[in-house]
This record gives sequence, structure tokens and C-alpha cells, in this order.
Amino acid sequence: MLTRDKMRSTTRSFEKYYNPELHGEIRMDTNTNVLGNNPAASAALRDLDIDINGYPNTYSDGLRDALAELYGLERDNFVVGSGSDEMLDVSFKTFTEWGDTCVSPVPSYTLYNYFIELNGGKAVNVDLDEDFQLDVDAMLAPKGKVMIMPSPNNPTGNTFRTKDLEEILVRTDGIVIIDEAYGEYAKESMISKVNEFDNLIVLRTFSKAYAMAGLRVGYAVAGRSVAEMMTCVKIPYSLNMVSEIAATAAVKDQEFIRKSVEMVNEQRPYLDAGLRKLGFETFHSDSNFIMARSPIDHAELVSGLKRKGVMIRDFGAKRRTENCIRTTIGTKELNDIMLEKMAEVIQGC
Amino acid sequence: MLTRDKMRSTTRSFEKYYNPELHGEIRMDTNTNVLGNNPAASAALRDLDIDINGYPNTYSDGLRDALAELYGLERDNFVVGSGSDEMLDVSFKTFTEWGDTCVSPVPSYTLYNYFIELNGGKAVNVDLDEDFQLDVDAMLAPKGKVMIMPSPNNPTGNTFRTKDLEEILVRTDGIVIIDEAYGEYAKESMISKVNEFDNLIVLRTFSKAYAMAGLRVGYAVAGRSVAEMMTCVKIPYSLNMVSEIAATAAVKDQEFIRKSVEMVNEQRPYLDAGLRKLGFETFHSDSNFIMARSPIDHAELVSGLKRKGVMIRDFGAKRRTENCIRTTIGTKELNDIMLEKMAEVIQGC
Repeated sequence: MLTRDKMRSTTRSFEKYYNPELHGEIRMDTNTNVLGNNPAASAALRDLDIDINGYPNTYSDGLRDALAELYGLERDNFVVGSGSDEMLDVSFKTFTEWGDTCVSPVPSYTLYNYFIELNGGKAVNVDLDEDFQLDVDAMLAPKGKVMIMPSPNNPTGNTFRTKDLEEILVRTDGIVIIDEAYGEYAKESMISKVNEFDNLIVLRTFSKAYAMAGLRVGYAVAGRSVAEMMTCVKIPYSLNMVSEIAATAAVKDQEFIRKSVEMVNEQRPYLDAGLRKLGFETFHSDSNFIMARSPIDHAELVSGLKRKGVMIRDFGAKRRTENCIRTTIGTKELNDIMLEKMAEVIQGC
Repeated sequence: MLTRDKMRSTTRSFEKYYNPELHGEIRMDTNTNVLGNNPAASAALRDLDIDINGYPNTYSDGLRDALAELYGLERDNFVVGSGSDEMLDVSFKTFTEWGDTCVSPVPSYTLYNYFIELNGGKAVNVDLDEDFQLDVDAMLAPKGKVMIMPSPNNPTGNTFRTKDLEEILVRTDGIVIIDEAYGEYAKESMISKVNEFDNLIVLRTFSKAYAMAGLRVGYAVAGRSVAEMMTCVKIPYSLNMVSEIAATAAVKDQEFIRKSVEMVNEQRPYLDAGLRKLGFETFHSDSNFIMARSPIDHAELVSGLKRKGVMIRDFGAKRRTENCIRTTIGTKELNDIMLEKMAEVIQGC
């Protein structure tokens, strides 16, 4: 039996990903869009008329053109792929040598270290400050070849200050990836600055506000020279035809996004107040989810809720998010169900 | 402007991939299935009823179960992803350290060196013998951490001898990837041997015989320990829902594959004879394409044919395939059109 010492040294401790057993629970653990399937994408799937026997367009020009129009940029500012996960992978493959230090904040998205180590890099994690904002000097200190941070941050929910991001972009010699997976919900974005900072990569996904996680589409926005390098490194036609067609239709119909963001903005204070009433300490959110510190043991809360048919995400065993959970902001109906079930679990303790 | 010295050193010379301008030409250059769209997959697309807002199954268990049944293996012998290209990438990421030597034959699939260098490896290419068969000692001499070879080989068309592949598997300390992209057309396969050789990975694709290149689906078959390592390294849910559903339907309907292989077996001698009659030197094929040495200058032949609306692939400027072209084996109708246009181009010279 072949053993793990044959594996790339930086990957030998890798385990399989979060893959909970499901029994029809309400999913408040994935931060997808609670309004359901993207209507323009669904319509495009119903009307599919394609030759699946042919290869897709090599670099997904149709989708890149739609994105260019949406943002007032050029096709060559965009690199698209199979989920923003592929764009994360491509970013590290394009810009890191073996053993290069790559920096991300803590607490933050758990998969960044996986992508760094997957590609032979050394992951250095730097603590956010008390308000979960970036400590700019501390982030710059390890001199990362690539720095990566999500804004809005996951799981804390807040955006980072634009002036901090810009200071990092100016002071580092490396590449800076801003992962705007939840960018549609935030008031500010770095996308408009890709031609100003030649070391900036902004990542976006169709899995959250666009309600299309099942189709795996994501994109990177960058200055033309960085985007061209990533294009040469990425696997040709990695995005399948169906997903490209559906995503292109979704980009051209911004009404669903507008409605989704409006709903979240309306429900955020409602859910926040409901959680506080139950004894949670809540944290500021600029996204479609809220992180909150549980009034009872986090694991009891999460497993108790699952038994009652509601799934939330548990971050309670990690440093800096001790006893915290993260929940998607639902519709009023979903929020009421969840708050009611939470009250039952807390009372039963 | 950021320059290429910021890139991973092994990727700085990368260029964009083959991406010809198209004007409705007959495509005899991609070796997809000339019978057209996979009917079971197309039916599955018509009947789609899915929640695209949710994430796909993390490791595509539905498709892995269908494949396990087809081959009489277990779900955990399979790793599936977005094209066999993703599986190539994952194989190198899982098993190579920076600078590791990886070996592939020449002439062979041009993208192997890309995948090796993309992942920081050192590509060593070893000449095939006069009959385009493996020189086993020469392949083993560089002591590759990973060895990769397609069988049937592309662009030459022949399979490698099973006894040579087995000798390599036994004598190497490394991982051996057999890329069976055209395996459905061949008489022999290494898939049944994944439990016998723990260092064997067999790759398959839905882009060729399955007629589903547009959906980007591929898979690796390996012993359980190697498959588990690759599963931990691959990006979770990289295969989108739609492609998984269509591929699962296609696996369960083998009639289209049987018919496609039968058509190719029937047309192979016909096209071969037609090419020889035009003055081509043809090479033995176990696949759905034929490599042939042109009686006129390769570039003139290929560009002349393109002007007449037929695309074939030019390998004439490369060592060992001097003045050679590669053409898909078409239906009788397609073969007749191509042979007629070829005759016109040759006569016009």
C-alpha cells in the first residue's frame, strides 16, 4: 500500500473537506442566497440549445464581455473559471515559488491555507485587531509574496477599511488578493481600482449573491498584465459551456442581485436584534451572514439546532472566535424559525 | 506595469492555448465524437430539475457510483473533476515536490509539459522508438517522480504494449499516469489493474468518445490509497451539478459508446486507404484519429484545407512528426468530404 510519504510534503496532512450529512435541514450554514435559484440563470438552463460535443470557448469570452460591460472594464481585465476556488488556485500557481511566504489574516476563510500549501507555499497567518480589522504593519511584516484577505471577511462579516487595503497594496512588493466572495452585499469594492494598482487581484463568485453555487463559476479581476499572466497559467476552457451561458445571463440581469441585497439589508438589523435578545454577542456585518458569540456552549447550540432541522456553522473551537457561530441572514420567515429553534435549544440547556 | 519576473519561474514562458479563429469549418482537429452530442447527456440536460443555489455533492458521489458500477470497482477508486485536465493538475500537485523530474514520451500530448511545469516540476521527454512504442529503459532512466503517457498515444494514435506499461509500473519508485483519453476506442485498458499496481493512475475523459467536451468532465481511477490522497488535494466540489448529472446519465447508457466505437472501427481502414491513395504515409491507429505524413508541405495542406472549410491539426513542424498532420476519423460522409478537399489542395500545389 502506497503511503502518504509519496505526497507533496506540504499536502501530507490534508483531510477531506466539510461535508455534513444532510437530512433536509434548513441551510443557514453556507451563506448562499436565501431567495433561491437565480431566475435568469434558471431560464437560461431551461432554454439550453448547445452542442455539448464541442469544446467551450477557450477563455470564456462571452462571460468576460458581460462582466466587462457590468463594471466598465475590458474583457482582458477578467479571468474566469470553475468557481473562485479555481481562481485562488491559479493565483498561487502564477505568483509563488516553492516555499514562498503567503500571508492571510486570522480569523478568516479556512481554505486559504489549503490553497497556499497545495501550491508549495508557506502559510503565515496574522491576527486581526480587536475590531477584526487589518493590522497593516503586522500583515506587511512577513513580506509575503502573495497576501490574501476576504472583504467582507468570513466568518466575521465586516469589510476591511479601503485605506488599509490601499496602504497594503502600495507598501508590499507582492501580489494582493482581495476575495470579494460577498462583495455584492458590501458598500465598497476594490474592482474599480484594478487599473490603479498593478499588483491587485479581486476575486468574485457566483456561489453567494448570484445563487449559483451548483454551477461553479468564479472570476478574477486584475490589471491587464496580471490577468494575462493568470490566463496563460490557468487550464484552458476550464469553465463548461452550460455554466458560462447561465452566468452570462445572470450578469445581464442585475435586478435579482438588487432585490437580494435589499432583503439582506432589511433583515440584518432584525436578525441581529433577535440574536442579542437571546443573549448572543453579535459582531458588525457588511455581508449576508452574522457571526455571534453564543450564550450557551457553541457545540450544544449547533448540534441542538441541527436536531431541530436548522444548520448553522460552528467556529466556537477556534482561537479568536471562541464560542462563536455563523449564520446566514435569512428571509424574515427563515430568521423567525431559526430564532425560535435557538430559543428552544437555549431554554433546554 | 508588473512584469513576468513576478511569475512562478517555471511558468514565465507560458503562452495562451490553441484557440483558432473559426468560421463554421468542419472540425477534424479535435478528435471529438463525429456522431454528435451524447444522447443520454442531452436528454438529462433537457430534463434538468435542480437547485443551482446549493453546492454540488462535495466529491460527486453520484457519478463515482455510476463509474464504479460500470467497471466493477468501488466508489473510492474514482476521483472526478472538471475535465481530465483537472485530474492531470491534481496528480502533479499531489505527488511532486518542487523541481522533481517528471517523464513523458515524445511525440506525445503537448500539454503534459505545461502541467508538469505549472506545478514546479522539471519535464523530461524521452523519445519513443521507431514504431512509436515505449523505450522502457530510456523512460525509467531519469527516475521520474511521476511518469505520464497516453495510451492510445496522441498524436501518433497507437496504444502502448501492456507488458511495457506493466514493466514500468513494477520497476519505478514513482507514480505512473496512463492517460486513456481515447481509451474507449482501444482494445486494452489499464483500469482493471488499479488494485494490482498501487502506483497506477488511469485518466479518462468525457470529451472524446462520450461527446461531452462542452461539459468538462474527467476522472482518475486508482487504488484506494492513491485515490484518497488525490481526493484530499483536489478542490472540493470542482465538478458542477449539471455536468455531473449529464455524465452520470451518459455512463449508464453505453449504447452510444458502442455505436461510436463500431463506426470508428469501420471507418478507420477506409480513411487510412483513402489517405494512402493520396500519397500520405499513415501510421497505425487504435483510436478515433489517424496521424499521417503529408505528400505536400504540411502547412500548405493544413491552411489550404482550412480555406476549403475543413480543419485538421498540424504537427509537421515538430521533431519526430515532421510533415505530419492528425485528422479525426469521421463518418463516411465526413471522410469523403475531407479526402476530396485534400485531393484538391494536393493537386493545386
